[in-house]
Amino acid sequence: MTSKPAPTVTTGPLPASTKVFKPGILFPDLRVPMREIALHPSAKEPPVTVYDCSGSYTDPQVEIAIERGLPRLRESWLTARGDTEAYMGRHVQPADNGFVSADRLTPVFPALHPPRRAKPGKAVSQIAYARAGIVTPEMEFVAIRENLGRAAIREKMTRDGESFGASLPDYVTPEFVRDEVARGRAVIPANINHPELEPMAIGRNFLVKINANIGNSAVTSSMAEEVEKMVWAIRWGADTVMDLSTGRNIHNIREWIIRNAPVPIGTVPIYQALEKVGGVAEDLTWEIFRDTLIEQAEQGVDYFTIHAGVRLRHIPLTVDRVTGIVSRGGSIMAKWCLHHHRESFLYEHFEEICEIARTYDVTFSLGDGLRPGSIADANDAAQFAELETLGELTQIAWKHDCQVMIEGPGHVPMHKIKENMDKQLEICGEAPFYTLGPLTTDIAPGYDHITSGIGAAMIGWFGTAMLCYVTPKEHLGLPDRDDVKTGVITYKIAAHAADLAKGHPAAKIRDDALSRARFEFRWEDQFNLSLDPDTARSFHDQTLPKEAHKVAHFCSMCGPKFCSMKISHDIREETRAQAGMDGMAEKYRDGGDLYIPVKEGAAVP
Amino acid sequence: MTSKPAPTVTTGPLPASTKVFKPGILFPDLRVPMREIALHPSAKEPPVTVYDCSGSYTDPQVEIAIERGLPRLRESWLTARGDTEAYMGRHVQPADNGFVSADRLTPVFPALHPPRRAKPGKAVSQIAYARAGIVTPEMEFVAIRENLGRAAIREKMTRDGESFGASLPDYVTPEFVRDEVARGRAVIPANINHPELEPMAIGRNFLVKINANIGNSAVTSSMAEEVEKMVWAIRWGADTVMDLSTGRNIHNIREWIIRNAPVPIGTVPIYQALEKVGGVAEDLTWEIFRDTLIEQAEQGVDYFTIHAGVRLRHIPLTVDRVTGIVSRGGSIMAKWCLHHHRESFLYEHFEEICEIARTYDVTFSLGDGLRPGSIADANDAAQFAELETLGELTQIAWKHDCQVMIEGPGHVPMHKIKENMDKQLEICGEAPFYTLGPLTTDIAPGYDHITSGIGAAMIGWFGTAMLCYVTPKEHLGLPDRDDVKTGVITYKIAAHAADLAKGHPAAKIRDDALSRARFEFRWEDQFNLSLDPDTARSFHDQTLPKEAHKVAHFCSMCGPKFCSMKISHDIREETRAQAGMDGMAEKYRDGGDLYIPVKEGAAVP
Repeated sequence: MTSKPAPTVTTGPLPASTKVFKPGILFPDLRVPMREIALHPSAKEPPVTVYDCSGSYTDPQVEIAIERGLPRLRESWLTARGDTEAYMGRHVQPADNGFVSADRLTPVFPALHPPRRAKPGKAVSQIAYARAGIVTPEMEFVAIRENLGRAAIREKMTRDGESFGASLPDYVTPEFVRDEVARGRAVIPANINHPELEPMAIGRNFLVKINANIGNSAVTSSMAEEVEKMVWAIRWGADTVMDLSTGRNIHNIREWIIRNAPVPIGTVPIYQALEKVGGVAEDLTWEIFRDTLIEQAEQGVDYFTIHAGVRLRHIPLTVDRVTGIVSRGGSIMAKWCLHHHRESFLYEHFEEICEIARTYDVTFSLGDGLRPGSIADANDAAQFAELETLGELTQIAWKHDCQVMIEGPGHVPMHKIKENMDKQLEICGEAPFYTLGPLTTDIAPGYDHITSGIGAAMIGWFGTAMLCYVTPKEHLGLPDRDDVKTGVITYKIAAHAADLAKGHPAAKIRDDALSRARFEFRWEDQFNLSLDPDTARSFHDQTLPKEAHKVAHFCSMCGPKFCSMKISHDIREETRAQAGMDGMAEKYRDGGDLYIPVKEGAAVP
Repeated sequence: MTSKPAPTVTTGPLPASTKVFKPGILFPDLRVPMREIALHPSAKEPPVTVYDCSGSYTDPQVEIAIERGLPRLRESWLTARGDTEAYMGRHVQPADNGFVSADRLTPVFPALHPPRRAKPGKAVSQIAYARAGIVTPEMEFVAIRENLGRAAIREKMTRDGESFGASLPDYVTPEFVRDEVARGRAVIPANINHPELEPMAIGRNFLVKINANIGNSAVTSSMAEEVEKMVWAIRWGADTVMDLSTGRNIHNIREWIIRNAPVPIGTVPIYQALEKVGGVAEDLTWEIFRDTLIEQAEQGVDYFTIHAGVRLRHIPLTVDRVTGIVSRGGSIMAKWCLHHHRESFLYEHFEEICEIARTYDVTFSLGDGLRPGSIADANDAAQFAELETLGELTQIAWKHDCQVMIEGPGHVPMHKIKENMDKQLEICGEAPFYTLGPLTTDIAPGYDHITSGIGAAMIGWFGTAMLCYVTPKEHLGLPDRDDVKTGVITYKIAAHAADLAKGHPAAKIRDDALSRARFEFRWEDQFNLSLDPDTARSFHDQTLPKEAHKVAHFCSMCGPKFCSMKISHDIREETRAQAGMDGMAEKYRDGGDLYIPVKEGAAVP
């Protein structure tokens, strides 16, 4: 084990932003974080409140030290429920870190706690509580978090959108959250061993969420980089983070990530299981996989991707595809099935997997191992055959009081996207859909955040609850820090565009505030209200670097004479000076061709 | 006038690409350019042919010298028609270049030709010929250009898409082009004074096109930069280029651009007219505007944005908007109307404008001066009132044998996009729609290529014929070279995604070729087939720089052990070794749960 100083991560608030905390009503001790963006005094507007998943890293009141981890805010909630117990837990084995040599071993996280599990016979999942009529602190936390200024606009709220059957309420109550979780229409991924978590919900009647993938590979990266990637991803708006590591040190790196993560962490356990058998898919066993699930559940992984829908009978359907099986987990399981001439052990042992998931409240993300990897393979028989199996598994998971979401494609041309959503809702009983993209064309490697951002916005509109980001490096290499940010911002755009189109009652607040700032030449407010204030400001600086230009009533695009917004202000003043506008507009609509001032002698500048 | 050496521009073919030329049948002398992308011999596939709007700059056979301009390939077609005449043309005046001082004057283009106009009583527009049943060389050029490998796949072509009423033919004939132009459903912007043009069509039954905007401003940039931006934009796929200059030297810079442009050049003449009156909108007159139209038509501008739809009666409808009038042309005209209490001179003189357009075959792009500039203002009364006027003007233009397209928004949330397309088709008699974006949210300045790329892909699918690009600098500053490229590639993605979804019979060829290359680990082919080979390659190099990695059967994302594509190949071999797949798939679908080898003792590696 090395003893280098613990690495640092990016901290500090975003520009003009203050972290505020709202208390609960049922649970007055809750401190639900939000970000308030202050506007210039000339705006005469209150701060704009936005959803904040960045955790303590953007809170100047909190001193960050990743070797300590984040505060364990859910611990008291968990102990208060009295249905879990701490226990010794599984021993870490050399295989857990890929048999890495001592000199290359990532240090063990210094502040380990014994894991917690459900007491015998107890179901400790959010869905179990919800079904029992219990509103948990997690549910109230989510309710407050989702409301974001809706109270402020409740009076003047006008609903505008096409929700395709989603039921976005005017106002999210804890009871609404409970009901959605009970119906399986939303999940709150919240492993009882992840007390650092700030709870969030994934469901189509809530804000559309996004996930960012991080993780090392056999080829590159370290613990320090991965923790920073997680912190960096949530700084820009990732609602959950998946650790898809496939290299060495998987166990220890994951511990550092979870202990420092205020967002749910997801994994694909088969990746680590495969490492444990030296990368030979055929050597996988149910026992090794089961042990890996427990290992990860004890660490606090909040959701597991399980490719139990890849059944032996589906494999022949993929053989004539242009790109075969492109899901790593899917291809591993397909290879195993074919080699052994046996049904998938994930499918056969799914009820036992449910028992483990329920013991720790690990949410399922049922993987789409047969998702299409090209436009040519979209919506084919293999993909939809697997979806049928996922529907069947959803019912089993629900029977076991487990939370479930369903993963979706992949590569899909625009005209085939909606069919994916419609089938998923129908076959999987409205369990939340969690899609990768989809990419709407294959011809732009290097820009697949964009090819997929198009599909993501659309499928988010149609009802997808969480969008898995795609970075510019997709298909080409591992994302670096800049790629992570570009992927996150692109997907925040897609998610927000989807919220707007669905008619989310509060989504338009930020667009309108930014548009007013734009019309009033409040450049600083435009930067601060944007998803990426740093980039907006630096782009403006490239042509107009002076401070004075940040209050200028023009920009470099048109220069002072041509500014349409400036002219619009002149027009507005001129028109208002002349007449009461309502009457005028009426008159013109009624066929008056030329403007005649209503008041004689009205001033014309 | 300075005598610096003429600047150079970017030349040379794209990787693995060869420019090929196809002859005509009606006009055997035509040389219609296409780009063939060669694949690795192991692919055993013919080269992939793609649309090529990059002109001679990517042809190593042509020596480029921008002071000479491009070859005047249409000159013989024009003279053969015998309905135009060369004449002395208008004298260039100091106002044309914004009264710039001699030491700052952009050099006059060295190889000026006298302009050409229709002989008295002749209509020389493509629509006039089309209506008279004449197939022009321009029409055959377009037909060949649009076909792109459709002949090769004609036998195995399967149509798949939702075209929303568009009628994409299996194969584009010159007669089809003529018919579409005659109906006004497509335009071929092709000023008789732009003989350097390689003709192209804009219409919803053709490939979706994109436009890139360039142009200097009062704040920045020069002739050399603008010519290079044009060359750079078409290198990456801009089908047309608009010169939106608003600074000094407008006349001379435009001459350099047009003489070197193989694509249609569009302008907004009111910008230059405003410069001529010192930037004071109220001082604009019909005479100055008319003179500017003739000035630009003589230079060879192929299409004019004319904001004749902004009528006095519409202005009051904009006063309560969040962002007022955001079109520069629209705000200039609104200010003029309001100041003079008069109807727009563009509207009142529209028939005279048509006469000018017909004399040179300048296509109209009827500007949407009242387009929404924010989500809040989308699809409002002002916007749709103007659209009604544009419908009326379309009929007038058609009466005068003028080609017309209609400009569209702007800022529109996803659920309001389709209404724009549907209304435009209905109100404007299917004249081609040419939209800016639309941006689907306002909250991401710095990323508006993406907020708008989402909307562009969707509206392209719904029927928009040409998409005006938006760069990352939108709302913040003037695009530089990198921004132009990013904007063009983003919009090529949107246009291609739209073609795929519409069911364009040849669009999928490139996706499939790239996907096969991906599945077969032909990395070089993946790069070369992509919209931006340079970026794709450099991203791959960042983690796997060695040449050997360009043939590796894995990449840095998963490393060698985890590669799903590699495993897919194993699966494919294994399955094929075991049995005839069709029978197997059938068997599984019929309920066989476990795989039983058809042949006893089949090898299992």
